[in-house]
Amino acid sequence: MRAVIIHAPRDLRVETVTVPETGAGDVRIRIGAGGICGSDLHYYQHGGFGAVRIKEPMILGHEIAGTVESVGAAVTRVAPGDRVAVNPSRPCGYCRYCLEGKANQCLDMRFFGSAMRLPHVQGAFREVLVAPESQMVRLDPSVPLAEAAFAEPLAVCLHAANRAGPLLGRRVLVTGCGPIGVLSVIAARRAGAAEIVATDVADAPLAIARAVGADRAINIASEPDALGPYGADKGTFDVLIEASGNERALVGALDALRSQSIVVQVGLGGEFKIPINTIVVKEIEVRGAFRFYKEFELAAELIAKRLVDVRPLLTATLPLERAVEAFELASDRSRAMKVQLAFT
Amino acid sequence: MRAVIIHAPRDLRVETVTVPETGAGDVRIRIGAGGICGSDLHYYQHGGFGAVRIKEPMILGHEIAGTVESVGAAVTRVAPGDRVAVNPSRPCGYCRYCLEGKANQCLDMRFFGSAMRLPHVQGAFREVLVAPESQMVRLDPSVPLAEAAFAEPLAVCLHAANRAGPLLGRRVLVTGCGPIGVLSVIAARRAGAAEIVATDVADAPLAIARAVGADRAINIASEPDALGPYGADKGTFDVLIEASGNERALVGALDALRSQSIVVQVGLGGEFKIPINTIVVKEIEVRGAFRFYKEFELAAELIAKRLVDVRPLLTATLPLERAVEAFELASDRSRAMKVQLAFT
Amino acid sequence: MRAVIIHAPRDLRVETVTVPETGAGDVRIRIGAGGICGSDLHYYQHGGFGAVRIKEPMILGHEIAGTVESVGAAVTRVAPGDRVAVNPSRPCGYCRYCLEGKANQCLDMRFFGSAMRLPHVQGAFREVLVAPESQMVRLDPSVPLAEAAFAEPLAVCLHAANRAGPLLGRRVLVTGCGPIGVLSVIAARRAGAAEIVATDVADAPLAIARAVGADRAINIASEPDALGPYGADKGTFDVLIEASGNERALVGALDALRSQSIVVQVGLGGEFKIPINTIVVKEIEVRGAFRFYKEFELAAELIAKRLVDVRPLLTATLPLERAVEAFELASDRSRAMKVQLAFT
Amino acid sequence: MRAVIIHAPRDLRVETVTVPETGAGDVRIRIGAGGICGSDLHYYQHGGFGAVRIKEPMILGHEIAGTVESVGAAVTRVAPGDRVAVNPSRPCGYCRYCLEGKANQCLDMRFFGSAMRLPHVQGAFREVLVAPESQMVRLDPSVPLAEAAFAEPLAVCLHAANRAGPLLGRRVLVTGCGPIGVLSVIAARRAGAAEIVATDVADAPLAIARAVGADRAINIASEPDALGPYGADKGTFDVLIEASGNERALVGALDALRSQSIVVQVGLGGEFKIPINTIVVKEIEVRGAFRFYKEFELAAELIAKRLVDVRPLLTATLPLERAVEAFELASDRSRAMKVQLAFT
Repeated sequence: MRAVIIHAPRDLRVETVTVPETGAGDVRIRIGAGGICGSDLHYYQHGGFGAVRIKEPMILGHEIAGTVESVGAAVTRVAPGDRVAVNPSRPCGYCRYCLEGKANQCLDMRFFGSAMRLPHVQGAFREVLVAPESQMVRLDPSVPLAEAAFAEPLAVCLHAANRAGPLLGRRVLVTGCGPIGVLSVIAARRAGAAEIVATDVADAPLAIARAVGADRAINIASEPDALGPYGADKGTFDVLIEASGNERALVGALDALRSQSIVVQVGLGGEFKIPINTIVVKEIEVRGAFRFYKEFELAAELIAKRLVDVRPLLTATLPLERAVEAFELASDRSRAMKVQLAFT
Repeated sequence: MRAVIIHAPRDLRVETVTVPETGAGDVRIRIGAGGICGSDLHYYQHGGFGAVRIKEPMILGHEIAGTVESVGAAVTRVAPGDRVAVNPSRPCGYCRYCLEGKANQCLDMRFFGSAMRLPHVQGAFREVLVAPESQMVRLDPSVPLAEAAFAEPLAVCLHAANRAGPLLGRRVLVTGCGPIGVLSVIAARRAGAAEIVATDVADAPLAIARAVGADRAINIASEPDALGPYGADKGTFDVLIEASGNERALVGALDALRSQSIVVQVGLGGEFKIPINTIVVKEIEVRGAFRFYKEFELAAELIAKRLVDVRPLLTATLPLERAVEAFELASDRSRAMKVQLAFT
Repeated sequence: MRAVIIHAPRDLRVETVTVPETGAGDVRIRIGAGGICGSDLHYYQHGGFGAVRIKEPMILGHEIAGTVESVGAAVTRVAPGDRVAVNPSRPCGYCRYCLEGKANQCLDMRFFGSAMRLPHVQGAFREVLVAPESQMVRLDPSVPLAEAAFAEPLAVCLHAANRAGPLLGRRVLVTGCGPIGVLSVIAARRAGAAEIVATDVADAPLAIARAVGADRAINIASEPDALGPYGADKGTFDVLIEASGNERALVGALDALRSQSIVVQVGLGGEFKIPINTIVVKEIEVRGAFRFYKEFELAAELIAKRLVDVRPLLTATLPLERAVEAFELASDRSRAMKVQLAFT
Repeated sequence: MRAVIIHAPRDLRVETVTVPETGAGDVRIRIGAGGICGSDLHYYQHGGFGAVRIKEPMILGHEIAGTVESVGAAVTRVAPGDRVAVNPSRPCGYCRYCLEGKANQCLDMRFFGSAMRLPHVQGAFREVLVAPESQMVRLDPSVPLAEAAFAEPLAVCLHAANRAGPLLGRRVLVTGCGPIGVLSVIAARRAGAAEIVATDVADAPLAIARAVGADRAINIASEPDALGPYGADKGTFDVLIEASGNERALVGALDALRSQSIVVQVGLGGEFKIPINTIVVKEIEVRGAFRFYKEFELAAELIAKRLVDVRPLLTATLPLERAVEAFELASDRSRAMKVQLAFT
């Protein structure tokens, strides 16, 4: 079968690899759709991020959905022909975090298409995937695989929403309208936010933020003072979901945040220089949010029931053999929100 | 009566001022003991901190206890002869924060001895204080006023403990062992922490941290790697109470903190450069804690019942007329933890 | 002006009363729509409930919206011509509950059309209402008053949802599909519930529960064992919103509830005989929910933004003069979900 | 070796049984002290409780501490000679509750000396116990085994305290002063409760409640109106820990509980008839608390550090061969709080 393999920055190849055997607890899937994620782009553009670097060829991809081809002898929950969304995370199930219900913090996590470990955990941009049943979420046959492949990034945002605490009636600011920001708008709306304001420095993603339900979308580059009025009486927003990974987005929003408001930092960045006295005096909480755990199943369920609608995010779908073109398109924020690969 | 008045950095004078009239809702108190706080020292040494600067002469002091001399006609809860701890904060009682139970975030707070407003709110280092009944907490006559004057800084630390969430069974790191750090050790112990480790860069305050119940007290200057072993398996501490206001204390502790641990930042500082990816990936929460609200009454009650013992913190008590000497002593961390003024 | 006045059980009269003067802080409103609530029906049918009994003639009604006619000199937030939803609750703003953000538990609450106090607090089924500005929520002029009059019962259900904690992704059972049950379905869906099952003993309200978004609606009288399968592996539902006030609804649901699930008891009833060992061993939480506080503004905002759609609940609107007929219709669950009076 | 075996109500025998083999992951312990629990007494007096009945001879006992004799080849955390408290609960580690950090709700729990399963899980009142390493908590050699044997019932109470949420500064009522009630007083004090009132119908246990730190202990049989004054202004107590399993204790306390207060029901009982309107209108929360999970380790640590002092509870220690006498003594509340067996 063919797979999308990163060898070095800008060296992405579609190559033939062998299909692993299907163990007793495994499921063999024909991948239907695979979304290109920001971390895939980091491997493609820079060979990694921070201390995480490609040290050997690695199949990319972890936002995927497909159709079951066959199952191992011990598999009971899915059957050939089933549509599935595939959870790319495989926690150990034994460590203290797994036993505390915090499997996303597992001490021995295997995550598709991640160079955190060596040997790297190979990813899922391939025609056929073999993975344990535990990673499969069975879908209603009516769910389009292209939508199901959004389960993973939506799960990230549902986890961010969970990290924010109850959102019913809250006023929410979302900074950064890439896929994670826009899906955070969707998650916050689904969770009952009363008002959602989104910011970005580009118009194209802001239009999509509006389309998925943001009450207001602000180009903070062209309207740098637009958050000013939200700063009256020690601020307006109960929650900031910071999805840009940009220090200025967080710091620039502090005045608009209420006392005792919550910042969920989901965007990765470098070092942030933070005026700590503002955090102290207004008693703001900054909470990291990383990946997801049981939110993956929830994401698949919300998509399947159309309780969320992810379709406005899908920019284009390119066939596997045009993977490089797809990665280039995905790298251009002015043209692309989410680009998917088709594998069949 | 005499009062301790700051005119400019290093220009602290004991001067005579007139006693205000006692309104119908007011209580007139003879002050017994007044503790010198870090913010008093900032006014003394630097004329303020950040944007808060002395613009007119201001009586300092807000950690006080005394004895009721007389009461206004409408006062019902205290009577002449009662011992009282005086809450230095007077929230408006009408703003949205007051009506949400977050009076420490009041939009119109008056806090004794604070230059945040102009005219400044005059402080309580004076022989006689007249203040509204709402600021009085009646004490059992057996409570020494010197201990009762710790109610205010203890309240700060109880508020920090409350901001941390339940501490029963938690492993707590306290960085910075000034009075706020040491009282945070006391608060965490009282709240049921299983293990408390304290750090500082000086030995004298660490000895007091140990005396009030820290399981371990580390001089992080002489043992810079001492927190290393706590970093195993993604960290040990559930909670960090950061009481130094020093960026290095927070950043240096991140590895020793568990995933999804909570940092309560109570120390004021400048800009902190924070590796945001660590916050994100370990899902750490950084929560500001500022002043207190109902914790003041709790502090007075815990002191009165000796459910906490603040006595190991009291370095020395100097009479009012030696205020400058007292401020100099209080400025020297190698010699002083908490210095109080006596007013009678 | 005319008003709807209860004199004794089944003695409901439309009578002429004088319009009170408009004080400096008051707003004078022409009422547009008023929904008949279960408590109105209790006064009509039985003269009250429990210890709360009509002791003097009382204007009924507290689910109302209208148009501002004039305002007192001190009013700033609304102006003549504005559409408003009127919050029927007027907490004191001074008691400890008000200052803790729990104004629905105010020690001195005045609630429209309630016989809890003597003299009773007169209600709002009247052509003209004069009330303090603080009870007014300004609406967009596009909002139909009939929908705005649902703000009050929706607020009850949003409060119940808030009492349940975060609902994003939760599986929710709602027992009892009167207006409160059905609006709880709406609230739970808005708050992100993944699955909602509703039960009742009558088909008509169940059909409406389905129409507003319940995944499944069960007639528990005709299908008494329908909850059985939800009891596997110690239960399915994370949350039960008990809106029937019927002991059997609560007790009959316990097996279907997960360990550590939450029951929000919003329906009033008499004595419930509860198998306490089930509560203990499964660690279920039973939480009362009573009225609302800031959820009223949220309800008005969600209705105005059509983030909830209350229209399927409205059975009929009758003019003021046919109030008795309206109350009779509202009393018949097989025909009516919510009956409103029109006042103009 | 000898063991204490229940055959039928009042038929308790000390008999000789064989010592099981020590598997690779097992630890072989010589039991030092074993406390007689209320459930042991139920088996002894009535053959069980509710639907749980002895269907075959069963060794009783689950409050134990001892000394390691030998360990299996795979054991790493304890060594011969170590003192250990033994956690009587062995959750499966695989079910959804175990993976949510709620192992006390495990779908496949094995708990020493419990007839819930058939074959029953044999208990630990025996001279030698062989059990998996995972159930061992290593103690400092200085900890007396008699104190360490309190880790289990203390863990129950720490879990109840955790179920109550943060207790720092809370006013706590404890109803029922058997060992669980008294240890709940200890747990609440350790967790920072500001005020603790305990009630019972007998004087002897109330004296012990006072000795371990209750601010007030009330004989509710001789002073049936003593809680009345706590009912002013909708109640005083933030938390009720109900440890009697008696309906009257819960119902009789409702007036004394604040609005939005929390009842932790830890005592098992039959059916409780509860005035549900009080629960609704005051928005009280009733939360079950069952056994414990990670609180066992905490209990052992708090005892070892003397952060709690359980010694006032120990009434008497009888040698194994006088087990029947020990059970009779433990059955008499006027004479006994906690009776332990000695095994060496």
